[in-house]
Amino acid sequence: MPSAVVLVSGGLDSATLLALARADGFELQALTIDYGQRHRYEIEAARRVCAAADVARHLVLSLDLRAIGGSALTTGMAVPKDRSRDEMSHGIPVTYVPARNTIFLSLALGWAESLGALDLFIGVNATDRAGYPDCRAEFIDAFQHLANRATKLGSGTASWKIHTPLLDLSKADIIRRGLALGVDYSLTHTCYDPGEAGRPCGHCDACQLRQAGFQEAGIPDPLLTTFPAGT
Amino acid sequence: MPSAVVLVSGGLDSATLLALARADGFELQALTIDYGQRHRYEIEAARRVCAAADVARHLVLSLDLRAIGGSALTTGMAVPKDRSRDEMSHGIPVTYVPARNTIFLSLALGWAESLGALDLFIGVNATDRAGYPDCRAEFIDAFQHLANRATKLGSGTASWKIHTPLLDLSKADIIRRGLALGVDYSLTHTCYDPGEAGRPCGHCDACQLRQAGFQEAGIPDPLLTTFPAGT
Repeated sequence: MPSAVVLVSGGLDSATLLALARADGFELQALTIDYGQRHRYEIEAARRVCAAADVARHLVLSLDLRAIGGSALTTGMAVPKDRSRDEMSHGIPVTYVPARNTIFLSLALGWAESLGALDLFIGVNATDRAGYPDCRAEFIDAFQHLANRATKLGSGTASWKIHTPLLDLSKADIIRRGLALGVDYSLTHTCYDPGEAGRPCGHCDACQLRQAGFQEAGIPDPLLTTFPAGT
Repeated sequence: MPSAVVLVSGGLDSATLLALARADGFELQALTIDYGQRHRYEIEAARRVCAAADVARHLVLSLDLRAIGGSALTTGMAVPKDRSRDEMSHGIPVTYVPARNTIFLSLALGWAESLGALDLFIGVNATDRAGYPDCRAEFIDAFQHLANRATKLGSGTASWKIHTPLLDLSKADIIRRGLALGVDYSLTHTCYDPGEAGRPCGHCDACQLRQAGFQEAGIPDPLLTTFPAGT
């Protein structure tokens, strides 16, 4: 079975991504970057999601992006709350982490080359694409082009393939696909600004997009069972 | 004065690179990646070189590439010794670190975006180019293309520029340029497999290329004063 390196954050996109990579026949080599996120729940969720997906290996690599700064996710900046969908679809939010997907894909590329794997999976998708430049198809194409010039493996006859099966899917589509493949979304974590024990704030962009996704898919978010309202 | 992010390893290429970036009129933001190299002398040399170049800031970012493996520089693999120039010019050596320059440029890109700087300097050059795929012009072009699609800054009207002033220079040319700009090469460190206090082994590819460079430039290596032969 060929191996693929799958970037896993612990959110619902990456949980779905693991299931899709497995359905494509790959042995799963999961990579999580511990980049100094403001909370640790994301890393814990990544571990749960990887265990449930029965990955061959889960590498959690530390890289302190707080030293680089420039984002509300790695500094003391406030995370925006209760923005309308219209506000979210304009401009690049303060939760943008400079060059994050470039950095993550580079690390995935290095590990994949070391493993002899030529396939990388990243969960960029339509919902994120409006706000983040490094979630667009032209960015992915440029990275794939780069990979084939950057490496020992790619400089031979083999070529790299960056898989983005979520690219054109809405949040609701992603949830429907994942449920069809048996993904347990109660294991995932989405919120940018969680409370105690990882309770979702319900008001940041990420929480709002998740809620709207489950609503549109017509399915209750299993996190509402873990964290019932008003408790 | 515009700022530029300069990747600095502590070797003679990066010491020269700092001097050239300064001569181009940039304020210097030096970035060193502490990636779990087998020895610490490289990081110490980077600190000395940056202090001498009077950089505005020197960020040493930790990223443990030993977890990724695949290279003699980050694992227990033996570093090759006493190879002929002909042997060095064939194939990719075991000292290749998977995707290293892609990872380093990605981190430089993230930090530069956070600082609002659009210029990056990397010391890839003709001597390394034979062996390492990520030291070639087509790799640099592909990275620059990527950068302009990967970032908030690049997705506006501004564009990124990856400077490679050493690209077509031999080791001897690099040394001549640096000396003309007052670079003190006694501060640098080159060896892949140093002895006590950082003494160069004199036999690895890096030591041999350095020796040949000083010889061709007709100048004694100042490290021979720090570490006299037979002491």
